[in-house]
Amino acid sequence: MNSDAAVSYTLGELAERLDARLIGDADLRVSGLSTLTDAGPGDLAFLANRAYLKYLAGTGAGAVLVHPAHGEACPCPRLELDNPYLGYAKLSHLFDPLNNRPRQAVHSTATVSPSAAVGERVEIGANCVIEAGVEIGDDCVIGPGCVIGADTVVGAGSRLHANVTVYHGVTIGKRAILHSGSVIGGDGFGFAHDGKQWEKIAQLGGVSLGDDVEVGSCSSIDRGALGDTLIGSGVKIDSQVQIAHNVQIGDHSALAGCVGIAGSTKVGRHCLLGGGVGLSGHLTLTDGVQVTGMSLVTNSILEPGVYSSGTGSMSNSQWRKNAVRFKQLDEIAKRLHRLERDMRDT
Amino acid sequence: MNSDAAVSYTLGELAERLDARLIGDADLRVSGLSTLTDAGPGDLAFLANRAYLKYLAGTGAGAVLVHPAHGEACPCPRLELDNPYLGYAKLSHLFDPLNNRPRQAVHSTATVSPSAAVGERVEIGANCVIEAGVEIGDDCVIGPGCVIGADTVVGAGSRLHANVTVYHGVTIGKRAILHSGSVIGGDGFGFAHDGKQWEKIAQLGGVSLGDDVEVGSCSSIDRGALGDTLIGSGVKIDSQVQIAHNVQIGDHSALAGCVGIAGSTKVGRHCLLGGGVGLSGHLTLTDGVQVTGMSLVTNSILEPGVYSSGTGSMSNSQWRKNAVRFKQLDEIAKRLHRLERDMRDT
Amino acid sequence: MNSDAAVSYTLGELAERLDARLIGDADLRVSGLSTLTDAGPGDLAFLANRAYLKYLAGTGAGAVLVHPAHGEACPCPRLELDNPYLGYAKLSHLFDPLNNRPRQAVHSTATVSPSAAVGERVEIGANCVIEAGVEIGDDCVIGPGCVIGADTVVGAGSRLHANVTVYHGVTIGKRAILHSGSVIGGDGFGFAHDGKQWEKIAQLGGVSLGDDVEVGSCSSIDRGALGDTLIGSGVKIDSQVQIAHNVQIGDHSALAGCVGIAGSTKVGRHCLLGGGVGLSGHLTLTDGVQVTGMSLVTNSILEPGVYSSGTGSMSNSQWRKNAVRFKQLDEIAKRLHRLERDMRDT
Repeated sequence: MNSDAAVSYTLGELAERLDARLIGDADLRVSGLSTLTDAGPGDLAFLANRAYLKYLAGTGAGAVLVHPAHGEACPCPRLELDNPYLGYAKLSHLFDPLNNRPRQAVHSTATVSPSAAVGERVEIGANCVIEAGVEIGDDCVIGPGCVIGADTVVGAGSRLHANVTVYHGVTIGKRAILHSGSVIGGDGFGFAHDGKQWEKIAQLGGVSLGDDVEVGSCSSIDRGALGDTLIGSGVKIDSQVQIAHNVQIGDHSALAGCVGIAGSTKVGRHCLLGGGVGLSGHLTLTDGVQVTGMSLVTNSILEPGVYSSGTGSMSNSQWRKNAVRFKQLDEIAKRLHRLERDMRDT
Repeated sequence: MNSDAAVSYTLGELAERLDARLIGDADLRVSGLSTLTDAGPGDLAFLANRAYLKYLAGTGAGAVLVHPAHGEACPCPRLELDNPYLGYAKLSHLFDPLNNRPRQAVHSTATVSPSAAVGERVEIGANCVIEAGVEIGDDCVIGPGCVIGADTVVGAGSRLHANVTVYHGVTIGKRAILHSGSVIGGDGFGFAHDGKQWEKIAQLGGVSLGDDVEVGSCSSIDRGALGDTLIGSGVKIDSQVQIAHNVQIGDHSALAGCVGIAGSTKVGRHCLLGGGVGLSGHLTLTDGVQVTGMSLVTNSILEPGVYSSGTGSMSNSQWRKNAVRFKQLDEIAKRLHRLERDMRDT
Repeated sequence: MNSDAAVSYTLGELAERLDARLIGDADLRVSGLSTLTDAGPGDLAFLANRAYLKYLAGTGAGAVLVHPAHGEACPCPRLELDNPYLGYAKLSHLFDPLNNRPRQAVHSTATVSPSAAVGERVEIGANCVIEAGVEIGDDCVIGPGCVIGADTVVGAGSRLHANVTVYHGVTIGKRAILHSGSVIGGDGFGFAHDGKQWEKIAQLGGVSLGDDVEVGSCSSIDRGALGDTLIGSGVKIDSQVQIAHNVQIGDHSALAGCVGIAGSTKVGRHCLLGGGVGLSGHLTLTDGVQVTGMSLVTNSILEPGVYSSGTGSMSNSQWRKNAVRFKQLDEIAKRLHRLERDMRDT
């Protein structure tokens, strides 16, 4: 019923790929990846978190990826390496059915401009629209229903899943992964007010994504007003994220779901923004800043570290009492101050 | 000008459908549903909220759905039943033009894999792409521009509105409603860090939706890393919602707009998440938990009840004073403690 | 390589368009818009913010848009007018490649119902689906992959970018701009509970957008339950915004990214909602209300002004201490009150 051919690998092959130490039968084949508790005899499991060590001895896995320190406790063949989680990440792609499908060519229903330059081994799905002057590098996969606007460049080895929209004049680096529903290069939110109403400002800049960028489902990255919105290399963007015009994100930063970044804000390298975080416009966050989930940042952050805002959740009845007091907080502080003064004076 | 044929029903037909008590002419026809204040003589109105009782006597409706306790006050024919709001819900579908259109077949521009199994009376819109191994149950409507990835199963009686994207390996139960722009099965946000940069973890799980699930416009439900993201039966998901990999939502829970749920969190049955609520990852919310709008939950909730976080809104000038004090709150508490001690000592 | 023909304008032409005072050579041509610091000799720059005055003397621009008060400091030809930012907005459209492309007709792969009424000079992109009874006014551009549902009306001069979805029975005014991934007219989130599960309420209303409305990428505006969701003229909506059923937005209001508005809430004219703002359902915000970013509003606001909620961000270690105290806030207030009483009594 399943349209994918099953894949399998010997432990010897996998050990070689990871440069891992194999203890066990090099010819044993595994055809899936799984957790210690769910794995069966045809699966490779992994132990990457000490909290799951208790499941190691009882695992039904055919083999396990494990740190050398835990190798002895392993009831089955094992691949030992220093970072089993990274090893799992690397091997995971071998088991992805998307990577094991025969590559298609350009679908007959796709509309590809004669002036587009399409590289070697490029798959272009049904109903795609590739406009004039587009360049698509080698080995790209463009899913069904994607629209790529004029003069946009898509780097080699990129995958656009179905129904992605990329506007004109966008530059996407190599090995990008853009998920369905994402939109790159829509207009930034720029208007001048004439005293009565809003006059639209044409957004004349573009968007530039570095290499190895991933953008999640339904996320949007707006084009610059003048000059480009810039996303560095290795940046990972989750689903439902909004990045406004002329934002800059430094290399290797990661933005969790539902993050929103207002115009012209600069986020440094190796930053982590938790889910739902909001950054006001025209800020600077230095390298290595982490912001916890749903925090709002309204001032620049010039020191690396972890930042937060908000209040913890509690029962609604408890919360109501405290939230009322929040509105009296300045008054409370002043009363406390008076009391301290009175106390000193007595 | 309107392309829909008008529909109308007799009060007798409607009473029978709802098992309601009819007081009035069974042959009277109504051709629309409306509120008490907007209804005209061809409309059926309803009284479902005591706050609107004052409008009952003066309604221009041709007939009214009403609780027996308010029947006497009704100036027109009426259908009496214990839950008029539920009655309105049930009848509303009769007046939906989407349900009164002749069903189309498979559009000539759709691309349907020869290995897809398409049921009886299925409508597949223009430019749809149905990949290899897909199964579509009887009586489904797949709107224009939808893409359904390989080996995905769509249960009987489901409706995908235009431009929905469902990735490969997703299971959708019966009678699902997926709104435009929604994306089911995009990659979860999973990466291992190699010390310098992010290594993507292929997301090898799928998504499983129970029966009678609705997903709003532009919402995304990500596929599991290993194992499926699980959405129970009867779960209702509003627009702009993000559900991360390996989340589990129990049956009959409802998630309002802009909710975001981080990876591996389990939400119980019959939960209600208000608009913009955020749940951190790896939490458990037991059955019957309600979280009010825009609250952030960072710890598991093991008791049913209503939970909240945040502060109420106020004028910006008032807020500024209080928000400054929030940053001094720990210090304020300590000063208060000292003062209490000093007071005891005097 | 670039598929757009270069455009250029003489300063004389631009002065006439803006009714600006030209000081310099009327025949000088400019072919781009830029900032003072980035502009080259072929560019027109602008000074709209006093903070950039320091860059005026050193600009490499060919000409500058400037307030008369700063004209003297200008090292190059200039266009003087009272609101240079508005002037920049107006001129920006001249340099937008989208406005300088030859208009296409109806693409051969579009599916246009014979009962649709399509105006003059309308471009309909590849794979568009225009359903029965649709009316599209003159000079519209409908991008590739758009789906417009039955009986919907699109006003003259509107532009739908690629992959926009508009449901049936929606009315869009003149000169609308809808960005990719936006969805107009999906179902509102309406259900009746039957004691065990949710019964869907068909959403029988529509959506009505006034003239000159812009909707950003991946934003959704849901159709009304009964009666329409109403968006006034001149309303500007950014990306990732959710507007629920039967919401009303007054003319010329602007909603920044990630705003969410719950059902039946009425926002006045000339309101400004910052990024990520949430409005509960059934509220009224009067004209001229501004709400700062990520604030939650749960009560109606009847006075114009600026409103806020939340706490400022701080380091996580500082925040943890204060957030714990927030949960004790009611108790702190009571202890303070007791202390004040004791103090008076001593």
